[in-house]
Amino acid sequence: MKFGYFDDKNKEYVIQTPKTPYPWINYLGSEDFFGLISNTAGGYCFYKDARLRRVTRYRYNNIPLDNGGRYYYIKDEKDFYSPTWMPVKSELDHYECRHGIGYSKIKAIKNDLETEILYFIPLGDNAEIHKVTLKNVGNNDKEFTIFSFIEFCLWNAYDDMTNYQRTYSIGAVEVEGSTIFHKTDYRERRNHYSFYSVNHPINGFDTDRDAFLGQYNGLNEPETVIKGMSNNSMASGWNPIGSHSIKVKLAPNEEKTLIFTIGYIENNQEEKWKAEDVINKEQAYELLEKYNNDTAVEEAFEKLGNHWNNLLNKFVVESHDENLNRMVNIWNPYQCMVTFNMSRSASYFETGIGRGMGFRDSNQDLLGFVHQIPEKARERILDIASTQLEDGSAYHQYQPLTKKGNHEIGGGFNDDPLWLILSTTAYIKETGDFLILQEEIPYNCDINNTGTLLEHLEKSFGFTLNNLGPHGLPLIGRADWNDCLNLNCFSENPDESFQTCDNKTGKTAESVFIAGMFVYMGKELAELYKRLGSDNKSQKVLKEVEKMTHAIETYGYDEEWFLRAYDYYGNKIGSKENEEGKLFIEPQGFCVMAGIGVDNGKALKALDSVDRHLNTEYGAVLLWPAYTKYQTHLGEISSYPPGYKENAGIFCHNNPWIMIAETVLGRGEKAFEYYSKIAPSYLEDISEKRRLEPYVYAQMIAGRDAVREGEAKNSWLTGTAAWNYEAITKWILGIRPDYDGIMIDPCIPKDWDNILIKRVFRKSTYEISIKNPEGVCKGVKKILVDGKEQEGNYISAFNDSSIHRIEVIMG
Amino acid sequence: MKFGYFDDKNKEYVIQTPKTPYPWINYLGSEDFFGLISNTAGGYCFYKDARLRRVTRYRYNNIPLDNGGRYYYIKDEKDFYSPTWMPVKSELDHYECRHGIGYSKIKAIKNDLETEILYFIPLGDNAEIHKVTLKNVGNNDKEFTIFSFIEFCLWNAYDDMTNYQRTYSIGAVEVEGSTIFHKTDYRERRNHYSFYSVNHPINGFDTDRDAFLGQYNGLNEPETVIKGMSNNSMASGWNPIGSHSIKVKLAPNEEKTLIFTIGYIENNQEEKWKAEDVINKEQAYELLEKYNNDTAVEEAFEKLGNHWNNLLNKFVVESHDENLNRMVNIWNPYQCMVTFNMSRSASYFETGIGRGMGFRDSNQDLLGFVHQIPEKARERILDIASTQLEDGSAYHQYQPLTKKGNHEIGGGFNDDPLWLILSTTAYIKETGDFLILQEEIPYNCDINNTGTLLEHLEKSFGFTLNNLGPHGLPLIGRADWNDCLNLNCFSENPDESFQTCDNKTGKTAESVFIAGMFVYMGKELAELYKRLGSDNKSQKVLKEVEKMTHAIETYGYDEEWFLRAYDYYGNKIGSKENEEGKLFIEPQGFCVMAGIGVDNGKALKALDSVDRHLNTEYGAVLLWPAYTKYQTHLGEISSYPPGYKENAGIFCHNNPWIMIAETVLGRGEKAFEYYSKIAPSYLEDISEKRRLEPYVYAQMIAGRDAVREGEAKNSWLTGTAAWNYEAITKWILGIRPDYDGIMIDPCIPKDWDNILIKRVFRKSTYEISIKNPEGVCKGVKKILVDGKEQEGNYISAFNDSSIHRIEVIMG
Repeated sequence: MKFGYFDDKNKEYVIQTPKTPYPWINYLGSEDFFGLISNTAGGYCFYKDARLRRVTRYRYNNIPLDNGGRYYYIKDEKDFYSPTWMPVKSELDHYECRHGIGYSKIKAIKNDLETEILYFIPLGDNAEIHKVTLKNVGNNDKEFTIFSFIEFCLWNAYDDMTNYQRTYSIGAVEVEGSTIFHKTDYRERRNHYSFYSVNHPINGFDTDRDAFLGQYNGLNEPETVIKGMSNNSMASGWNPIGSHSIKVKLAPNEEKTLIFTIGYIENNQEEKWKAEDVINKEQAYELLEKYNNDTAVEEAFEKLGNHWNNLLNKFVVESHDENLNRMVNIWNPYQCMVTFNMSRSASYFETGIGRGMGFRDSNQDLLGFVHQIPEKARERILDIASTQLEDGSAYHQYQPLTKKGNHEIGGGFNDDPLWLILSTTAYIKETGDFLILQEEIPYNCDINNTGTLLEHLEKSFGFTLNNLGPHGLPLIGRADWNDCLNLNCFSENPDESFQTCDNKTGKTAESVFIAGMFVYMGKELAELYKRLGSDNKSQKVLKEVEKMTHAIETYGYDEEWFLRAYDYYGNKIGSKENEEGKLFIEPQGFCVMAGIGVDNGKALKALDSVDRHLNTEYGAVLLWPAYTKYQTHLGEISSYPPGYKENAGIFCHNNPWIMIAETVLGRGEKAFEYYSKIAPSYLEDISEKRRLEPYVYAQMIAGRDAVREGEAKNSWLTGTAAWNYEAITKWILGIRPDYDGIMIDPCIPKDWDNILIKRVFRKSTYEISIKNPEGVCKGVKKILVDGKEQEGNYISAFNDSSIHRIEVIMG
Repeated sequence: MKFGYFDDKNKEYVIQTPKTPYPWINYLGSEDFFGLISNTAGGYCFYKDARLRRVTRYRYNNIPLDNGGRYYYIKDEKDFYSPTWMPVKSELDHYECRHGIGYSKIKAIKNDLETEILYFIPLGDNAEIHKVTLKNVGNNDKEFTIFSFIEFCLWNAYDDMTNYQRTYSIGAVEVEGSTIFHKTDYRERRNHYSFYSVNHPINGFDTDRDAFLGQYNGLNEPETVIKGMSNNSMASGWNPIGSHSIKVKLAPNEEKTLIFTIGYIENNQEEKWKAEDVINKEQAYELLEKYNNDTAVEEAFEKLGNHWNNLLNKFVVESHDENLNRMVNIWNPYQCMVTFNMSRSASYFETGIGRGMGFRDSNQDLLGFVHQIPEKARERILDIASTQLEDGSAYHQYQPLTKKGNHEIGGGFNDDPLWLILSTTAYIKETGDFLILQEEIPYNCDINNTGTLLEHLEKSFGFTLNNLGPHGLPLIGRADWNDCLNLNCFSENPDESFQTCDNKTGKTAESVFIAGMFVYMGKELAELYKRLGSDNKSQKVLKEVEKMTHAIETYGYDEEWFLRAYDYYGNKIGSKENEEGKLFIEPQGFCVMAGIGVDNGKALKALDSVDRHLNTEYGAVLLWPAYTKYQTHLGEISSYPPGYKENAGIFCHNNPWIMIAETVLGRGEKAFEYYSKIAPSYLEDISEKRRLEPYVYAQMIAGRDAVREGEAKNSWLTGTAAWNYEAITKWILGIRPDYDGIMIDPCIPKDWDNILIKRVFRKSTYEISIKNPEGVCKGVKKILVDGKEQEGNYISAFNDSSIHRIEVIMG
């Protein structure tokens, strides 16, 4: 069942009912100011940090679930309702929500009034703009009052929901004309305030929540709206809100636009005050002036559109498969940009108060956006590397505001350092910017102790080598990529974290997955050294890679598949010997991606085993069979009910590793099968089962052991986005940037033909046409570059700003 | 304006409208299982620790504010409503909520159906019982369905509202007969589950929130109730709830009782399971069996009543003043018991997830409950002392589950250690149990490093001596009693705590308040040594007390009042020299209590200054004039808007110090004036202004500089309860337990006469009659003990179990 449709021309998903199976959201903003907005206008906005600079308040998992946002109410003589359905939930004559790229539009018709609200954050400013268009579509004059409503968050979102002893006494506002200024705590150490304004004279306002709603009323029945008149209330403590009221009269067919703005301003310490207790509002005035008319707002909106078109224009595919086209051209790269902006902080599953930036996450996310915003990718790499320690280890997370490692969580996730090699080489391959390797970067953010980025990579690689276990495989530490496989943290206390509880000595438990990563990253590093002319170093690295490959083939393989790990006692995990958890997905993907066992059939067997035991209707589950009991020596993985999360859920992040591995073996059908099973657009028809947005990936889909098989959870902020983008663009469509050019090496289903791809690479535009006359999965027979045939499938970089035609004949 | 009335006979406050100015709550439970319940059945319950073992879910500061609790719905042919008003909010024909001692009763009539729900937690069991009585008060047969509803919390209340990645995948239940078992995480490390049951066959149930409510519906409109039939839904992940439905048919005048039970069970590790994935429910069966009929429930309720009557019977006053009587006999000691049970963890202002037990708080709270539960007071003292460090300093907080010091907050609140002397001497005076002083107690919870309790006290005293500043006054550290006066933590970053940010060296800022405490506690300690026969030690202590008294009089007094402190730069705080914050309340109270300046007029001047500058209509404000700007060298105190909290709010905790100080000077009128200004019962008539419960103290009342002067905040969990109890019983009524007996020394308004007091002291009952024929404030002329006149006003302990008549003639 569908709840809307894709409008690919406008790059929008159009939702046709407010009653989606879960709030379907979108993101606003791409610089410092951000908003989350659901299809019924729920959500909130913040500046830079969703915990420390929350601008509007939001309650997660409320009843109803998505109850709170930027709301408008229309009150006419007989009735009141919300033009975004929520929170009043009156039946609307027409409803439509268009989630576009960086904006949303919600349209409604009721009682002969058409409303359209466009929500976006203009480039260059810290403000959420709501352009509200009101049109009388009836035959009679229409008079009504429009009320606005937002609830201010008292900045620190965690304190805001826990520290009522303080927060109930500090709320403060000022009102000037049509602008409500929220200045809680501005009198103390804060130098920032927010405001909510409208470009129109108002008939009244409210800033005190109880005054606006009435103490016992829900958002669905504000007393003020019911009586039709604002109270001009001034908040002092308790809960400051912003609400305007404007009386409107429209003749038939007449249209009126109101521009509401939520803004955030920082003042210099010396310029905080205009007068005693009166804040300096100059910057707010400027901002409001800038967006005080329709033309200005429309121009800003167009500019935003151009900005996004430019980003999404770097890779465009035209194929017979509209699902493929829209995932690759629109939604997947858009989601990748959102993961760049948000990391794992703020979604409808992540509350924005919990986590910093993950070391591992951030490196992987980069794969998905490096071609769109290479300069920001560069900055991100340097930020991440600065939190690495001198022994090569890494803080598992760092804080976005301070960019320092998070001491509470600490390190000991032994895969972390290796991911830095992946992101750095991906960046250089995209940009050719080898100079980044010479950047001097701190260890542990200590600017007195630095090393070049290249040295950091060397330490990453060395860290694994310095932490090998009894079989010569890497020690796993607290966990590797699978945060829930905790082989050294035997936890029996439910009040402690599975990851950060007392660590066993950790000198036996080994990860075959990290071993596979080590081979993969080692080959990358060796290749990089070669390019840099350090053949010696390259050889040394390759020697270690060989040794590790040997260790994996000897101790990390179990007849038909790669083992997952050795536990604290030296016993196998992910082996036929196990009763449960016989087969894990992660090492199968990464070992084959690294080329291990490709020449001797082990890789083939491993992938066939994945197909046989893990592949299901909705994607490949993480392991088989699911754990039915909690086992202290395995940790959190066995704590989940079978079929959910890491315990045999379809953990989408690792499915693309299997896709890529399949392309390594040349099996285009299989690679694409895995791709289309989890790519959301293909699943639009089962939205009632999948529940989450059909335009973005979710972290997890409940597996076959689960009661709710096929139901997705945790959409938007997941490494799934980057890895699927990697799999489809580089390995299935096969357009792979490399140090000196682009490799073209598609691996597709046999019956695909006539694929057109536009790829912008280092300023040149490659217009690639792929033909597959013989119906092969893999293999390039002939390539013409600008009409001239060339040897091999590696197209050297042009380093110009021209368009080049590349004709590819597979066979 | 009143919203109800006191029913003193039943020890109840009777609320007559659901629309109180704020949710007016009560507490259930007095051992390990607790519930908070508002007058419309909002709130939640938990086992021992409100953060780690939250049984039902609750959202603070929701819209409407108090939206969530243990709810029942009545659905008849035409209508549905809540018999507790919330959450449906239908008009009721009659409504009444009785908050009693350890129980609440909510009664309603609508559509000819009378419902009465009694909520309590029986002694000895971990269960909240809801006895629901349904009576047809109309003339026709009545058929309807009753639906129950609670939402389970997934145990850790913090994770429950932040970690949706995990919590949405783990929810699990079992249903057996009429019982819904909540067993989330039981499969992993938890050995506890909860259940919700009813002693009646059910027509259906729901355990999945979306199924019961419908995804878009609020608690005011559950789909299931509207359609009148349960779905028998089984939760798998997302949000597990408990809901039963029972069809009821009542003839006119017929009555029916249903007993609903929310229970909490812990199993031994070896006995967790009955079968694969089926929990062992034996203990639940037993508990349900125990309370499966009206008689059993009524007996348990009676037992609870007796338990409380026994506790409250230790001190009973009969005077002409009913406000006084009910505060002293019922509500103040009840609130003291609640602060014993809850410390500062769970109220409608404290979310139960934030804090541990305060070192300072817990010592002071003890003053209010030591006479009711001396054994538990003993245990509490030993727990607190165990977290003291060997140098005498103390962790500012400790965790109730582990009883270990809280490292995150640490120490450096330099008043903390001294409070241990106060609680210990109060305990011994109440009980005569000098043996407690010989208990060997760890330092910093290290059982290999211990000292006797007496040695701990010695270290407390020594800590101050070892931390004196330039004027010989105690260094303040991060803060003293006033957590917001931060003289060594110059904070300019709004994202850090005022208390735990970088500490300056702290070798200059001194606290006159701690100095006053030191003198007060020093005299206590000297007296204790004397009783123990250590005259030498006693003398040594007194010498230090004298030195400190001298330092205070020389450097800590400013013409008309005691200074508050010296700041980091050595400048005065709380002095005429200051532009703002000239006069602070705390040192005036504590220095005079300690006897400083009593002989030379300084004390008198100080209290007159308090009267002149701090005393207002609603109590004495903390300081004058309020700070109008944030000042880094003063810290958080200056961060609050004028009139709120420590910045010139009426911080009720320190008002009783002024009351006691006034009794030291013999001014009974003034002492009682301060008492009656903040004692809630006296303020019942202005409930619409005060907003909070008229039966319990609040931490703070907005001061005269505030926009909302007279409005109270943070009711229930405040040291205010203990100190007011101390002031009224020991200093105004003047019944003071001492090491060998009781001192009788009232200090009352002149026109008081004929006060009867019953005091249970070391098993003997003292029936004290106070007569005041000459209309004095203070002074005992004659005392007859069991009819025989005695010298002086010190009645030696009888150490028997008899009743003794004490006639006191003032004059």
